[in-house]
Amino acid sequence: MSPPSRPAIIVHGGAGDLGPEDPSSSGGPDAPRLAGVRRAAEAGFRVLFAGGGALDAVEAAVRVLEDDPTFNSGTGACLTAAGDVELDASIMDGATLRYGAVAVVKDVKNPVTLARRVMDRSSHVLLAGPGASAFAREVGIPACHSSILVTPAQLQRWRRLREEGAAAPGKGTVGAVARDARGHLAAATSTGGMAMKLPGRVGDTPIIGCGTYADDSLAAVSCTGHGERIIQLTLARHAADLVGRGMAPMAAAREAIRELGARVAGEGGLILVGPAGEVGFACNTPIMSRAWSTPGGTVLAEM
Amino acid sequence: MSPPSRPAIIVHGGAGDLGPEDPSSSGGPDAPRLAGVRRAAEAGFRVLFAGGGALDAVEAAVRVLEDDPTFNSGTGACLTAAGDVELDASIMDGATLRYGAVAVVKDVKNPVTLARRVMDRSSHVLLAGPGASAFAREVGIPACHSSILVTPAQLQRWRRLREEGAAAPGKGTVGAVARDARGHLAAATSTGGMAMKLPGRVGDTPIIGCGTYADDSLAAVSCTGHGERIIQLTLARHAADLVGRGMAPMAAAREAIRELGARVAGEGGLILVGPAGEVGFACNTPIMSRAWSTPGGTVLAEM
Repeated sequence: MSPPSRPAIIVHGGAGDLGPEDPSSSGGPDAPRLAGVRRAAEAGFRVLFAGGGALDAVEAAVRVLEDDPTFNSGTGACLTAAGDVELDASIMDGATLRYGAVAVVKDVKNPVTLARRVMDRSSHVLLAGPGASAFAREVGIPACHSSILVTPAQLQRWRRLREEGAAAPGKGTVGAVARDARGHLAAATSTGGMAMKLPGRVGDTPIIGCGTYADDSLAAVSCTGHGERIIQLTLARHAADLVGRGMAPMAAAREAIRELGARVAGEGGLILVGPAGEVGFACNTPIMSRAWSTPGGTVLAEM
Repeated sequence: MSPPSRPAIIVHGGAGDLGPEDPSSSGGPDAPRLAGVRRAAEAGFRVLFAGGGALDAVEAAVRVLEDDPTFNSGTGACLTAAGDVELDASIMDGATLRYGAVAVVKDVKNPVTLARRVMDRSSHVLLAGPGASAFAREVGIPACHSSILVTPAQLQRWRRLREEGAAAPGKGTVGAVARDARGHLAAATSTGGMAMKLPGRVGDTPIIGCGTYADDSLAAVSCTGHGERIIQLTLARHAADLVGRGMAPMAAAREAIRELGARVAGEGGLILVGPAGEVGFACNTPIMSRAWSTPGGTVLAEM
């Protein structure tokens, strides 16, 4: 077992494959994603190393990924069937089970921070649509023009998908889970959802227990993949429960993803961190970019 | 154990108390609620008795409650801080784990039926806000003017709460769970949410595993109460899991509600039906109106 004071973080940059249409595929498909998840894990780990809390660490890590146009969250998000961005994000505090989330937000640069404000400064846990934007203005988060969020690569992809008339996986939901030196866990997830989704579609990301879950006594989990399938199994909560029943974090991640495929034919992946700071991850897709801190204090990244 | 062919249904009309401000309190506080839940359970039971499926039964029962101005769903829903109705609803099929839900809908008379359409006719599971209304029009559900949904009693209550400047429990979320003669389970829930909620607020009702859950191998569950607390425990899924681990339906309902109070200081109630058609219910509030079919084929109602 790890010593109780060990901080740990693991982030993901989405499960999926790297098709020719992927915005990150120019100049080598893996490089931008690997660099991005590494930067995010390092940003979160700096917070933990400086004695910061798990909540602050996962928020910092996810903000880095939201601002990176390589990933399907914040800047660079997938577009809906109507050609808009509609962003979903969530954050959860494993020490108190407090939770905040937003869905269908069109005008906020860092939805994970808006989710944190919902947790900290409202009596609610999930705000959706124009009401979420109105709340953002109330708590001092300025409106962000869609021209910042919509990247040329996503616009190009949208034009092609619209001709094909098909929805497509979002590829690149981001998330982070961390354990701080006091033993508290936190999780956060952010996404633009599926490409060509119906306007108003909410996936697993902002749903407690589905895209995100954290409970100090179990684990902190962030999921990515086909949201409609992940929701059916309340996958984040289920993976955390497996750790709570004594399964090692890596085994729990693999078992939860095995069930996602076997029970609902779902494709996706997840990351988790257990109460002792051990990380776990699994996916049943060709790739899931991820980066995590080692007990030695370095950060590893892989697809 | 009950024979496998026994159909069963239980409905609720919300957990809470009956304060002087309650819209149903004129002419005896209990009578309109008891009559309403009885009518709804009978409507659902007729579907089952005629050989219909559990999904059709819970949808029929919830529609009766949505149309009854006594309850906080559809017609008679609570108003937001902005004086609007914003409706949430969900439905789930225990045979396939298929699910449909809508949130923050302002212009649909029977949100549970819109949730059913999301399940049956979209590739998504949850639509929120204007996108949900646009989908309603696409599948032929007409826009409903807010003057139909906003009752004089709720408008009066909103004026008083606005002066007091406080949010308040919604009191009167509705739900139904059923087991049909083929042994399939289904659950549905519908609500106007909290009175004076922030616009865009989404509670537990449309969230799979929180307000609603159904899995033929476990149980079907519908919750009511303080949504933000119910979400923290993914209460519907948790109660279903307790049945799956061998607890009797009534004991599982009580244990789940005990944990709601003990772990997150939440107030609420739930109904459930197990794989053999045994019903369970519990609440930690002064009342929860409910009605259920007995093995003899009659319907009982109580608060």
